[in-house]
Amino acid sequence: MTKEEIADHFRSLQDTITKTIENTDDFAKFKEDNWARKEGGGGRSRVLVNGRIIEKGGVNFSAVFGTLPDKIKKKLAVNSDDFFATGVSLIMHPENPHVPIVHMNVRYFELNDGTYWFGGGIDLTPIYIDKKEAANFHQALQVICDKYNPDFYTKFKVWADDYFYLRHRNETRGIGGIFFDHLNESENLSKDELFNFVIEMGQLFAPLYSEIMKKKANNPYSEQEKDWQLHRRGRYVEFNLLQDKGTRFGIDTNGRTEPILVSMPPEVKWTYQYEIESNSPEANTLNQLKKGTDWLQYI
Amino acid sequence: MTKEEIADHFRSLQDTITKTIENTDDFAKFKEDNWARKEGGGGRSRVLVNGRIIEKGGVNFSAVFGTLPDKIKKKLAVNSDDFFATGVSLIMHPENPHVPIVHMNVRYFELNDGTYWFGGGIDLTPIYIDKKEAANFHQALQVICDKYNPDFYTKFKVWADDYFYLRHRNETRGIGGIFFDHLNESENLSKDELFNFVIEMGQLFAPLYSEIMKKKANNPYSEQEKDWQLHRRGRYVEFNLLQDKGTRFGIDTNGRTEPILVSMPPEVKWTYQYEIESNSPEANTLNQLKKGTDWLQYI
Repeated sequence: MTKEEIADHFRSLQDTITKTIENTDDFAKFKEDNWARKEGGGGRSRVLVNGRIIEKGGVNFSAVFGTLPDKIKKKLAVNSDDFFATGVSLIMHPENPHVPIVHMNVRYFELNDGTYWFGGGIDLTPIYIDKKEAANFHQALQVICDKYNPDFYTKFKVWADDYFYLRHRNETRGIGGIFFDHLNESENLSKDELFNFVIEMGQLFAPLYSEIMKKKANNPYSEQEKDWQLHRRGRYVEFNLLQDKGTRFGIDTNGRTEPILVSMPPEVKWTYQYEIESNSPEANTLNQLKKGTDWLQYI
Repeated sequence: MTKEEIADHFRSLQDTITKTIENTDDFAKFKEDNWARKEGGGGRSRVLVNGRIIEKGGVNFSAVFGTLPDKIKKKLAVNSDDFFATGVSLIMHPENPHVPIVHMNVRYFELNDGTYWFGGGIDLTPIYIDKKEAANFHQALQVICDKYNPDFYTKFKVWADDYFYLRHRNETRGIGGIFFDHLNESENLSKDELFNFVIEMGQLFAPLYSEIMKKKANNPYSEQEKDWQLHRRGRYVEFNLLQDKGTRFGIDTNGRTEPILVSMPPEVKWTYQYEIESNSPEANTLNQLKKGTDWLQYI
């Protein structure tokens, strides 16, 4: 499987996803922006704003190539200069605080010395944790993981717990999901098999999240619940700007700022020492933002 | 001058500043939070919310010591393990879009091998640039700089232009100010003189900013102007979380998150490809967010 073929499949994945989300939202349409990168390659950003369910959502496809900046070569501990990177990255910020924020990303990276790897991840960030929803989400991921390697789910679930962790807050971002990086032939899977795993996870996203959208989008919510959402979105901003590697990579490789930062929520609040009542649904959610939870127990 | 004396002066500086801002705001009071750092030292955070003029403002004093994390030792290119750091750091987010956001910081750093340095900076971030106001601000800084070294103002003004620059946006954060770091005996000034320079800049802040608050806080503003402010605050968030060294240092040294992130504005908006009309006051401000402007010409 060539890098061009992988990029083509990722481009199609973007199509499938935006179509499904549009159908479910049933109001707004994604606005497309094609862009070229001066140093090589380009991408197709699709952004939906003020939908019936999605207040702001972005699904970005890109396939870029060029010379690796020294800073990144050092970070990746590689010597090759020329890279090719393609991926689909998405984030959805729903209007209703009962619909969780979601992020998904699939990516492929290749160097001119022949090394390559796949990476990706998907994680759900509920404003109010629904254990059953969390269990369903994790179970769907487990099913796909198990098809390729019985260890994948556990390994990648722990990786997500570690990756989507706000150290300065001692909180997980949400209920996690799976995260993986640097997957290559060392996994005893062929390149095609690794690709299939990654693309299956990518294809899972839209039906899985659409289901959640349909179920929760009409739930009534209070001002207090909206306020809690705006504050939780602040955590999302903190994670993406302080820690997220994809955001950093984009910024450091002179990527397009607007599509990269489409991950920023439409409206956010920060209150110093924001107070929530003990035993409230907000406190209940906060108490569950911990690593190591076995969500599958709530099936 | 010992590190304890410097810390004492910085603590008094915090008192002077919060008192002056309270007098000018004439409505809300700073709320104090004393905290201790597990690894050594502590601080005094003062936060004002929902004032008449200041929607959210924080003035932090801290004096911390301990062992330098390897990550920071590497960044600073030092070998000493034990550090002492003290400083005052502040940020003001006014409610009225005609009152600029402001940031000021003075700091002193010492290692157990005897090396020390002072750092600091002050910069103004107007939502709508007022050339005369920018000129007054820079002139006040120039006057202080000139007392210590005729090259300081130019050097530190350029440093601020470079430091307070959002690379991914190709924008300066605002109209700049001065920024300096690693000031020590190599400047041909004694430790006392360097301290005097730093503390003078610190003392300049409150009367200078109070003047601006008084002048602008009663200006009427439109919904559109408020909306522009909420979006410009987004840039402030991006700078502080992606680039600001003080924020990083705090987060990396296991500092207290709430006082560090009091710099986050109370309410923020991000709109994908936010559009502003050409030749509008918003466009006019955006066009002036460039390095190298000689603001003194507008005196």
